Amino acid sequence: MLRWLTAGESHGPELIAILEGLPSGVPVSLAAMREDLARRKLGYGRGSRMKFEEDELSLSGGVRHGLSLGSPVALRVGNTEWPKWSEVMSAEPVETTERSRGRSAPLTRPRPGHADLVGMQKYDFDEARPILERASARETAARVALGSVARSFLSELGIRLVSHTLSIGPVRVPEDAPLPGPDDVAALDADPLRCFHAETSAAMVAEVDDAKKDGDTLGGVVEVLGFGLPPGLGSHVHWDRRLDGRLAQALMGIQAIKGVEVGDGFLTTTRRGSRAHDELFIGEDGIVRSTDRAGGTEGGMSTGTVLRVRAGMKPIATVPHSLRTVDVATGETATAHHQRSDVCAVPASGVVAEAMVALVLADAVLEKFGGDSVGETRRNLESYLAAIPEELR
Amino acid sequence: MLRWLTAGESHGPELIAILEGLPSGVPVSLAAMREDLARRKLGYGRGSRMKFEEDELSLSGGVRHGLSLGSPVALRVGNTEWPKWSEVMSAEPVETTERSRGRSAPLTRPRPGHADLVGMQKYDFDEARPILERASARETAARVALGSVARSFLSELGIRLVSHTLSIGPVRVPEDAPLPGPDDVAALDADPLRCFHAETSAAMVAEVDDAKKDGDTLGGVVEVLGFGLPPGLGSHVHWDRRLDGRLAQALMGIQAIKGVEVGDGFLTTTRRGSRAHDELFIGEDGIVRSTDRAGGTEGGMSTGTVLRVRAGMKPIATVPHSLRTVDVATGETATAHHQRSDVCAVPASGVVAEAMVALVLADAVLEKFGGDSVGETRRNLESYLAAIPEELR
Amino acid sequence: MLRWLTAGESHGPELIAILEGLPSGVPVSLAAMREDLARRKLGYGRGSRMKFEEDELSLSGGVRHGLSLGSPVALRVGNTEWPKWSEVMSAEPVETTERSRGRSAPLTRPRPGHADLVGMQKYDFDEARPILERASARETAARVALGSVARSFLSELGIRLVSHTLSIGPVRVPEDAPLPGPDDVAALDADPLRCFHAETSAAMVAEVDDAKKDGDTLGGVVEVLGFGLPPGLGSHVHWDRRLDGRLAQALMGIQAIKGVEVGDGFLTTTRRGSRAHDELFIGEDGIVRSTDRAGGTEGGMSTGTVLRVRAGMKPIATVPHSLRTVDVATGETATAHHQRSDVCAVPASGVVAEAMVALVLADAVLEKFGGDSVGETRRNLESYLAAIPEELR
Amino acid sequence: MLRWLTAGESHGPELIAILEGLPSGVPVSLAAMREDLARRKLGYGRGSRMKFEEDELSLSGGVRHGLSLGSPVALRVGNTEWPKWSEVMSAEPVETTERSRGRSAPLTRPRPGHADLVGMQKYDFDEARPILERASARETAARVALGSVARSFLSELGIRLVSHTLSIGPVRVPEDAPLPGPDDVAALDADPLRCFHAETSAAMVAEVDDAKKDGDTLGGVVEVLGFGLPPGLGSHVHWDRRLDGRLAQALMGIQAIKGVEVGDGFLTTTRRGSRAHDELFIGEDGIVRSTDRAGGTEGGMSTGTVLRVRAGMKPIATVPHSLRTVDVATGETATAHHQRSDVCAVPASGVVAEAMVALVLADAVLEKFGGDSVGETRRNLESYLAAIPEELR
Repeated sequence: MLRWLTAGESHGPELIAILEGLPSGVPVSLAAMREDLARRKLGYGRGSRMKFEEDELSLSGGVRHGLSLGSPVALRVGNTEWPKWSEVMSAEPVETTERSRGRSAPLTRPRPGHADLVGMQKYDFDEARPILERASARETAARVALGSVARSFLSELGIRLVSHTLSIGPVRVPEDAPLPGPDDVAALDADPLRCFHAETSAAMVAEVDDAKKDGDTLGGVVEVLGFGLPPGLGSHVHWDRRLDGRLAQALMGIQAIKGVEVGDGFLTTTRRGSRAHDELFIGEDGIVRSTDRAGGTEGGMSTGTVLRVRAGMKPIATVPHSLRTVDVATGETATAHHQRSDVCAVPASGVVAEAMVALVLADAVLEKFGGDSVGETRRNLESYLAAIPEELR
Repeated sequence: MLRWLTAGESHGPELIAILEGLPSGVPVSLAAMREDLARRKLGYGRGSRMKFEEDELSLSGGVRHGLSLGSPVALRVGNTEWPKWSEVMSAEPVETTERSRGRSAPLTRPRPGHADLVGMQKYDFDEARPILERASARETAARVALGSVARSFLSELGIRLVSHTLSIGPVRVPEDAPLPGPDDVAALDADPLRCFHAETSAAMVAEVDDAKKDGDTLGGVVEVLGFGLPPGLGSHVHWDRRLDGRLAQALMGIQAIKGVEVGDGFLTTTRRGSRAHDELFIGEDGIVRSTDRAGGTEGGMSTGTVLRVRAGMKPIATVPHSLRTVDVATGETATAHHQRSDVCAVPASGVVAEAMVALVLADAVLEKFGGDSVGETRRNLESYLAAIPEELR
Repeated sequence: MLRWLTAGESHGPELIAILEGLPSGVPVSLAAMREDLARRKLGYGRGSRMKFEEDELSLSGGVRHGLSLGSPVALRVGNTEWPKWSEVMSAEPVETTERSRGRSAPLTRPRPGHADLVGMQKYDFDEARPILERASARETAARVALGSVARSFLSELGIRLVSHTLSIGPVRVPEDAPLPGPDDVAALDADPLRCFHAETSAAMVAEVDDAKKDGDTLGGVVEVLGFGLPPGLGSHVHWDRRLDGRLAQALMGIQAIKGVEVGDGFLTTTRRGSRAHDELFIGEDGIVRSTDRAGGTEGGMSTGTVLRVRAGMKPIATVPHSLRTVDVATGETATAHHQRSDVCAVPASGVVAEAMVALVLADAVLEKFGGDSVGETRRNLESYLAAIPEELR
Repeated sequence: MLRWLTAGESHGPELIAILEGLPSGVPVSLAAMREDLARRKLGYGRGSRMKFEEDELSLSGGVRHGLSLGSPVALRVGNTEWPKWSEVMSAEPVETTERSRGRSAPLTRPRPGHADLVGMQKYDFDEARPILERASARETAARVALGSVARSFLSELGIRLVSHTLSIGPVRVPEDAPLPGPDDVAALDADPLRCFHAETSAAMVAEVDDAKKDGDTLGGVVEVLGFGLPPGLGSHVHWDRRLDGRLAQALMGIQAIKGVEVGDGFLTTTRRGSRAHDELFIGEDGIVRSTDRAGGTEGGMSTGTVLRVRAGMKPIATVPHSLRTVDVATGETATAHHQRSDVCAVPASGVVAEAMVALVLADAVLEKFGGDSVGETRRNLESYLAAIPEELR
């Protein structure tokens, strides 16, 4: 079983993450993690935020000489702007100075579409700072770093993940467009919106420009694909062991995600049964499915065909053209705090979704195959595949 | 924390379910549970299956004189057809007799869209019986019975749930149709498809008739609404504590569900930010939201407005007009086993979805408010609401 | 991961248990489970309770034709005295009749040493019936039945468990007495106190007789031994993954247990370091330990030598020579309710401890080796053992 | 629910810990945590290890201006000797230099009584460094820091913990010695062995001197006391919810602990029932128990009287007078690596035990009372106590 926790506030000194349960012998490289953190900042429509400094990522435990030890992996993602925030976000009591007065002003105008108001009610705060610091999407950097480790583990087992953008606002990749494969990741990362369909990508760029001009924001849909999964991850025997359900929680658990699909998802609900499933045939190397409408799961288990899951992200809630709210200090109508200028974070959310899928799959792999070293897990996986009778493959 | 397990095969002697963590003093009534089990069988387009016998539901523990004891609640849902299956599904080794030969023939033609093939690979069986017996939707009867208990608990706290059908195949309730409320449940249950929009319901009936004529099946979308939730169920502080994510897993964890939405879901991804969130205003009794696009959650927490989640169900995979498959005993192309004649199970899936939402909410309530007796939980809930400062309400 | 829940009240219709996570292909036999349930009633000093009727144990799910299916295993242990209690313990509201008046009288004199008083405070009851029904040691029958299943799984992997009685009151087996082995179980079960040392057993019988004469009760210590464990169950990497800690919780989680030891336990605390550990030597077949002071774990992991854990049971709290208490209905001093006449339940607690150890080990095995069929788990275990380099064996 | 993970190797750059689930508003002070870390180093018989530098503890998240935020609390305990180990324990691949050759020599002589050998088998390493780095008692510093936070939370609810030393080797505090109370902590910390009985403490000092002279090591027994607990923490309704079992796992999960007792523990097993339980009487302020043999739990729940649990620690396994082992690189008999010179770590283990008890109790409090701010938890606790009927108090 894989367990993991993240911690840290958006403007705190650093994010912290621990991953417990990873076998020994998994290659863990700061360079690879930094690359993923950089990918998380990709996408046309992002505001001008300071770039990550390479040296701000560090490993605190669980890795030695490039390989995991079997002990918990711990990492830190430093906040390069910490000096500006060290008083406002100090863990220790501080006397507020002139310098910090602006930043430390209480945030009493909760932003619609954010955790602000309900967070204040729940945790008993009279301003939103203590809530928004943790609810911020900044936290996903910790997930991406952990997801990078999970992906390295999966990669040792021949499992590779790809994420791409399906839609930005109303602009969407055609249904019959080809899917990217594991070798298309560099191309995807080079596309302004991580979209695999050039024509659509161009239209997306125009849509982003248009929204920016209007002082507005955009959402969209991303898809994560999994290649090389063995059949049988997850289980039909109990609802909370189903792989599709675990993926759904992981994706819906990303900030701003409002919808999740497996395979053709909601489209499938409009089809008739005779054209909604993946029929089985005898192929050259055994049983094949001619379609992948199901998205690579049946009965809550991976089938071994391409896993395909989607997450729908709402437009960024911090709208430049500010939303109306209430100032809880005065009880007056107000406009919401507005702190950043992204138009669209959909491409980045694909990278986060990829990380979440990696963590779920790594957990499901360990549940099925066990193993305390990556060699042991791989051996168990391979002997399982070899033991499936020929007539069932 | 609420924990629960279900057990039992579709044609076994009975389903069993245990719910651990329920406070004492919750009214638990066999009559109410039977009513919910009956609702699970509702819906135009169901095949002719034997009706539940009232006496087949029983309570084995955790309840005394109509009230929960604080100890685990256990229940059984008997299979009235068990005598026919007692050899095929015997827990003890049996010598196969003439009588059982038909039913006990190995099922070697795995059905597309079902757990059959991958289940055989995973659990090392050469026929599908051991898989389909557990993967069957029959298991949801146990969830509905438990959900009935969870709903009684929620009801003691003023929380009420409603489920209804949004679409059957391509036929869908208009976007601007009014939502049903807690008092509309009887009307919904009386509608052939548990649809709150009469005109759409009539079109759905026609769609079912049409599909039946074609030997085909239908899917659709259901929605569950939650009224009376306090603000602050779930949390933004860690991904796996988010209420939306937990609901997503619970709904995706229902057989045949392929998509999940919170609030306007995927529709929101096509809107611009200025029209995608719920702005805050000062109303007569405090802060109000003029819209409910978010579906009653912000930052992964309930806001106190109506909770609104959706699940998209694929068409029934056992298509009368049979799907193609492979007979794994012979390696030949074949048509899939076909065992029942439902055209559409969407209305029933709404009742199952309601049960899953009830269980998730009951768990989230206990996480936030604790309590070992329903009186203690209620007291804690009420004092929390009373302690929210006036300016934050 | 193995999950399990038990439910049911002492005088309710039945106990229910579900075990989730067991691989397929494990032999599950009602006869074996009944035998274990019978062993749980062994021991000189037990009162005259009705013997279990053989037909009162049944399997509700997860097993077909003698083998587990991979789905949750569910079982019931019926209460043969249920007709006498059907009103007092009815799940449905009842009108109390003459017949049940005696049994249904409120129990307002909480028994010292029992859950009665604090349970009433916690769960908000004004009498002890709702508490003692669940706190009763009767519940351990469900654990023993599940433990029997877990033991069958372990047995498929070459792991065998033995439990025996080390002490009854002040009478204790000498430190240097030989340990029983897997082949001594029948002899142990035949001994009046499940003690492997004949002389001590005779003294124990005398002690029980003496206590009985005095209207008093006795506790004692039991030991569970595990043979054939692979090295490496549990882990040192995180406190809650340590096998010794998990065993400690499982044993302390048995009713009336007040102390737990691994290996020589508290005796070790009085030794000097030079004589407290198990030194390593080169033996004929590799590395050997000449002693087993540690009880078969190092660093929270099984070493592969004999596992040895102990549980200390307090004397039965329902003392014939009744203890003083308070009648909470009157506020007066009183003597405690006295409902049974056992002098000593230590031998039976060994059987319960064995069941708990079996469940913990089965879980630890699945964590390390995974597997959805018993064949897959065994294959993974064997290939792990084969892969340990010769110089480390 | 409280979740927590620790990470980090003994000679790595730092230990990391995350605590998830703590309510907001809990005072968290680096000074208090440093004090606890210093207490963990107390005790006559410790070797000369570098003192903690005050600035090496830092908070990374979850705390602002001295109060918890409700988000995960994360902290780091830096290793002041890291520069010496930065190559040997580098997370990144390194080219070994002259300087690091000594420290980086493979540890091929697994130490008896440690995780070394079985850890190498389990995690597939050919030397012990990757194992002993994590199995080291150094990791308990992270637990103590987290325990300090948990204790602050408990303290806000009126719950206070005390730990003291009961025995060192064969030297033991008399059975009838008075127990320390919450106000005796400073005195205990000032005693060379954290023993509350002056005469025994002096004998313990002599015993340590004697063992040191012999090149040997000592174990002992510590006791943790909890004052001010409400009745009803934990539960009798399911084995894994019992407070005594959870405490047993937490204590046995500390490095080198081999036995755990609640209340009088194993001593109780030798008593007769009439003198083994805590009878109930009417006192001036309600129901009282005249004894505390049970250690403050009945039926797996706190009774509200003093909680009393014990942990038995084996002598330090790294014995100066080295133990025999095998060099796995040569297959020859050898003596074990010997790396430190402590004679006895029992007093420190009391501080670790206190931390573990604090974490378990904080979790049990949140389970029973819920609450997202410390004010909410306290309010729920107080209203529970106020609602217990007078006749049950």
